[in-house]
Amino acid sequence: MSATDPQRITLIGLGTIGMSMAALHLTRDNTIVDIFDTRPDIEEYLLKTLPNFLTNNESGSNPSPTVNDLITSGRLHIHTTLASACASATIIQEQGPENLEFKQSIWAQVESLAPKMAHFWTSTSGIAASAQQANMVDKTRLLVVHPFNPPHIMPLLEIVPSPSTAPERVDFAREYFSLPPGESRHRPVVIKKEIPGFVGNRLAFALLREACYLIQEDVVSVKDLDTILMASLGPRWAGNGVFESYQQGGGEGGIKAFLEKLGGTMQEVWGGLGEVNVLGNEKMEWKEKVIRQTDEAYGTLSKEGVWEKEERLKDFIAAQSRRYGKGE
Amino acid sequence: MSATDPQRITLIGLGTIGMSMAALHLTRDNTIVDIFDTRPDIEEYLLKTLPNFLTNNESGSNPSPTVNDLITSGRLHIHTTLASACASATIIQEQGPENLEFKQSIWAQVESLAPKMAHFWTSTSGIAASAQQANMVDKTRLLVVHPFNPPHIMPLLEIVPSPSTAPERVDFAREYFSLPPGESRHRPVVIKKEIPGFVGNRLAFALLREACYLIQEDVVSVKDLDTILMASLGPRWAGNGVFESYQQGGGEGGIKAFLEKLGGTMQEVWGGLGEVNVLGNEKMEWKEKVIRQTDEAYGTLSKEGVWEKEERLKDFIAAQSRRYGKGE
Repeated sequence: MSATDPQRITLIGLGTIGMSMAALHLTRDNTIVDIFDTRPDIEEYLLKTLPNFLTNNESGSNPSPTVNDLITSGRLHIHTTLASACASATIIQEQGPENLEFKQSIWAQVESLAPKMAHFWTSTSGIAASAQQANMVDKTRLLVVHPFNPPHIMPLLEIVPSPSTAPERVDFAREYFSLPPGESRHRPVVIKKEIPGFVGNRLAFALLREACYLIQEDVVSVKDLDTILMASLGPRWAGNGVFESYQQGGGEGGIKAFLEKLGGTMQEVWGGLGEVNVLGNEKMEWKEKVIRQTDEAYGTLSKEGVWEKEERLKDFIAAQSRRYGKGE
Repeated sequence: MSATDPQRITLIGLGTIGMSMAALHLTRDNTIVDIFDTRPDIEEYLLKTLPNFLTNNESGSNPSPTVNDLITSGRLHIHTTLASACASATIIQEQGPENLEFKQSIWAQVESLAPKMAHFWTSTSGIAASAQQANMVDKTRLLVVHPFNPPHIMPLLEIVPSPSTAPERVDFAREYFSLPPGESRHRPVVIKKEIPGFVGNRLAFALLREACYLIQEDVVSVKDLDTILMASLGPRWAGNGVFESYQQGGGEGGIKAFLEKLGGTMQEVWGGLGEVNVLGNEKMEWKEKVIRQTDEAYGTLSKEGVWEKEERLKDFIAAQSRRYGKGE
């Protein structure tokens, strides 16, 4: 089966990520989406919540279909048992609780219920496929598809196979999210080794740790640190990766020249980066200060605030696609 | 003297940063720029190079003045001695070599040559004002104004006073780069303590260190890591700072809820972040691999490539200013 064929996707777990994933799949013309979630009011919740994600997905002037349209036309099904949800799937994607026992149990069940060829994807941000598959008979089918929030807008999907995952399963996932070629707003990347946090969150958390340390040391406030990031690294990294930026920064000598020129400052910084913890009792002085200053700076984000931020994210991604849309 | 008054700015050192700074100052109507650089062909070099920066600075349909226009109208002066360059300055800004002896020597000279009230700014990325001012009599006048490349486009300016810098000197620099109010494309931020790398580069280098470690460990390639950054964190941080993003990511519970939910993965990542060096003999395995993969991925950037990247950077910053332009 090719990734360009019609797909029937079962989504297990319809929290925020699941809802956004449903919207992602439903914008493709040749998909059917089957939904399974244990909350008793799932139908009502879906009718109320999914339209926000479908509207967000609109790229042109064609109105999005309503949830009722999708149900009536047979493109969206709500199931009350895992068995019926999995029965006809070509892809089964899980966004349940981040809990190892849950994941191991659900995949063993899914394996016994799903068609033999179906692909198994977990949206986990933290539990490797090799750990999740412990109770499965065939360990070649499962891989991580880690999205960034919200997946229907954010282009990145980290595809992280376990050492047992079959290479054709990896190829299929990458191809699916790259469709249609040259037009997909998504950019799947295969991670070659399982590692905690995968790549995107490792990079984010490395920066966050230093950010928390700088707040702890009163070098800068939460609000000013955010301004610094938005006024420099954010727009730079929206247009160029970190290595590409430093290749450019080094002029004709590229990143090699950059590392020589800035090596002294860089080594001084690397040697003195802050070391703080988020769990435990030691090196926790930053935490209360960061939470307090963040609350003071931003309060609780309103629905309008979140919507405005998503619009902005779409702006930046649209500016990128003027480049990536041409497949460069 | 207020920052809104006409200013006469002496620029010492006209490399890439100095040239971009000249363009930044010359886009303001009430400035005169005096230039001093030791290269013998400075006039020829300026006539050839500065127009690229002035064109980049155009925001509307008014054509930029030519360098000859600026010289003829008395807005731009080229000097052959430091004494004549400094004689009438209200601001003296230095972008010379990143070398402590040079900085200490130039500021002692400048202090003896410049008008009593002139402000002293250094564009250093690594040498604190408290170290640079060692040979000055009055240590209240000097502060760091660290720009991000290229300063005529990039909004951030890190203003880093030494413990001896007078508060009104800090206020003046911040006010100058904020002009005109609500319209300036620049966003100056005051850093409260001197620290190696200041804030922007500490955050960048924290992320870079982990990026280099992930290349060393073959978790991902240079090209794929750059794609990951551009497809997730770049556009996110172009629109929201890191703390604001996690405040949003935590939903109603804000960043506190986020830290609780992701704390396990985050602690595992923080505890296992890569430790590599850029100088010395140990932990250097990443370096050759990063340079080779970066060269393979990007080669030497062409003039057109650099121009295209600057256009893109301006796109992202324009998208931001739809928010910041309103002073929100």
